[in-house]
Amino acid sequence: MSSQYPEAVPEIVESEKIVIGDDEIFEAHAGGKLSVELKSPLDTKRALSIAYTPGVAQVSRAIAADHTLAARYTWANRLVAVVSDGSAVLGLGDIGPAAALPVMEGKSALFKEFAGLDAIPIVLDTKDPDEIVETLVRLRPTFGAVNLEDISAPRCFEIEQRAIEALDCPVMHDDQHGTAIVVLAALMGASKLLGRDMSSLRVAVSGAGAAGVACSKLLLAEGVSDITVLDSRGVLHPDRDDMNAVKADLARGTNPRGITGGMVEALDGADVFLGLSGGVVPEELIATMAPNGIVFALSNPDPEIHPELAAKYAAVVATGRSDFPNQINNVLAFPGVFRGALDAGARRITEKMMVAAAEAIYSVVSDDLAPDRIVPSPLDHSVSEAVAKAVAQAAEA
Amino acid sequence: MSSQYPEAVPEIVESEKIVIGDDEIFEAHAGGKLSVELKSPLDTKRALSIAYTPGVAQVSRAIAADHTLAARYTWANRLVAVVSDGSAVLGLGDIGPAAALPVMEGKSALFKEFAGLDAIPIVLDTKDPDEIVETLVRLRPTFGAVNLEDISAPRCFEIEQRAIEALDCPVMHDDQHGTAIVVLAALMGASKLLGRDMSSLRVAVSGAGAAGVACSKLLLAEGVSDITVLDSRGVLHPDRDDMNAVKADLARGTNPRGITGGMVEALDGADVFLGLSGGVVPEELIATMAPNGIVFALSNPDPEIHPELAAKYAAVVATGRSDFPNQINNVLAFPGVFRGALDAGARRITEKMMVAAAEAIYSVVSDDLAPDRIVPSPLDHSVSEAVAKAVAQAAEA
Repeated sequence: MSSQYPEAVPEIVESEKIVIGDDEIFEAHAGGKLSVELKSPLDTKRALSIAYTPGVAQVSRAIAADHTLAARYTWANRLVAVVSDGSAVLGLGDIGPAAALPVMEGKSALFKEFAGLDAIPIVLDTKDPDEIVETLVRLRPTFGAVNLEDISAPRCFEIEQRAIEALDCPVMHDDQHGTAIVVLAALMGASKLLGRDMSSLRVAVSGAGAAGVACSKLLLAEGVSDITVLDSRGVLHPDRDDMNAVKADLARGTNPRGITGGMVEALDGADVFLGLSGGVVPEELIATMAPNGIVFALSNPDPEIHPELAAKYAAVVATGRSDFPNQINNVLAFPGVFRGALDAGARRITEKMMVAAAEAIYSVVSDDLAPDRIVPSPLDHSVSEAVAKAVAQAAEA
Repeated sequence: MSSQYPEAVPEIVESEKIVIGDDEIFEAHAGGKLSVELKSPLDTKRALSIAYTPGVAQVSRAIAADHTLAARYTWANRLVAVVSDGSAVLGLGDIGPAAALPVMEGKSALFKEFAGLDAIPIVLDTKDPDEIVETLVRLRPTFGAVNLEDISAPRCFEIEQRAIEALDCPVMHDDQHGTAIVVLAALMGASKLLGRDMSSLRVAVSGAGAAGVACSKLLLAEGVSDITVLDSRGVLHPDRDDMNAVKADLARGTNPRGITGGMVEALDGADVFLGLSGGVVPEELIATMAPNGIVFALSNPDPEIHPELAAKYAAVVATGRSDFPNQINNVLAFPGVFRGALDAGARRITEKMMVAAAEAIYSVVSDDLAPDRIVPSPLDHSVSEAVAKAVAQAAEA
């Protein structure tokens, strides 16, 4: 099989595999990864009189008279709430809010590291969409934006939509749109590298959850017309009667060749495999893809196929992990997206802003593409800056 | 009048009046007073692999298998939520959650400065007790303790009681018990200084709100038997039919001499005036107190009587302000109380722990009492340490 597309197999860079022991991981998480700090010390009578009584009363009085001043004199207007119910954490599933917390702390840390935004983890002991939205509405004066995180599909679609409508601030479910933005950017990079017109690509999307749905929709919006989406029961097709409303809707907009069946049918001759399922795809099926293919095996922590195996057949391989090249990680998108939306004073994060974000990510590597460099490194701080600028411009346009 | 008790009037230390312009105050609040920081930078692939994917999955998996591990590997277990609905902010009244935020940020800053505890402001856009308690229950995995703040009476009594019952973590309404603890400590100091037995003092409490009720109850519990409490309609008396349940209850336990009337009757011959009302008490009435009196005019930002006027008649004068001597400020109590409770793993903050806190505050100045030093300075970091230790011991006892 490996001889089937020999010329398509690139030299894979030996992945910079980082071996980290459990001890080191747990030690690094002891006591949590965040700290609330004072912008100025409160160690003099004068400082206390300014920041607390009696000085603070002046500020509270001013905000009471003009609520818009809260944006200027508190941290809330630019504070991102990283909100989860722990129902779909990484690839680990419904592990609950307490177990989700380390991820939300990490996310909050990334907001600070890459966008200079303060962020706090909010984990909720309820999975009821009504209760989640209601809680966010009650908490509204506490924050300035909401990053929904690791909420299971299809609940996440309703929760996000209702939160967007109920709150007058930027709300984004990162598992949907953060992923979609980075996947779009990566596909721009891979297409350019391989000399392909993105709209001509035949794409198989494994997974019709949060990420699968959002990626498919954003790629459709950007002109990719041949997308086949699979859930655990096979290819989405309008004739199926076992789909939720979101999948039924997606089935109507995708699968132009009317494929039925499963992964075998979807991958046969496909240019792109986009793995967002948490499942596994066998090497034999990757081998049936068209030559010069693209494999994005994005499940975390375990990619659908090991990138070194995928590279036997595909021209470009990416994963979601930081210990392999081409890391398609949302950190390339969400810090800059929220930073740009907040900088622009935007109340919504629109599709236009998401596309602008993808283009900005792509622009960082577009002059320097390589099979192991279709997206910038997640450590490249210039990305969030470029994304923030592009998103703010798109918001203002 | 000032000649009535000449020998009782101490030399008042010229108050170290700090004049601070509005510009300086507002500038210090620009963008808020808090910042979320990373305990370790996320600037290498290795750091990202440990704190985020794939490393964080190990920690989430471990917590999913054993929820108690969240206490060890997240910040939540020692994170204090500073929660307000903005219904009774300082002496400013019902100014709403947005206007309350600068105070909650200040409070959170004080938790860090004095107890090394991380704290986040949570301001709620609801005043309904059911909704407030319900919201805290849903947020439960997010934090490890709740400091309720600036919630109006009598709602605060019900909200605190129900939150204590609903949450398996320390909950304290600081306006009630923080104030009561520091008032008790200050009264210990003033009594000792004046050579009085605290239980023999005749006390007039102006205000039957959060602080008035809690102070009266804690002083009663500590053996002060002659307490007269006033609300805006006059002295609490069991014969009154215009009182809420909390006041009716307090009326039954106080006012042993069966006084009726108002401030004139309550202050006549009183040893202690405890102002917790946000109102004003005229100099002429302070003049009718017993010689060698004690005036705690604690309303913020405007004391019930200017301390320099009160000092014409009283032997010991205190306010809640940082720009006068004898600042009876909750910051002497709450950082250490929560720190001690969390250090001991306590699920409740009991009256015993509160008395231990008061004794610890008193112990810091007991060997060095003076008319302008009946409580330690709010800047004295040794106080919260002493309080935390005493509270933890009381919790464990």
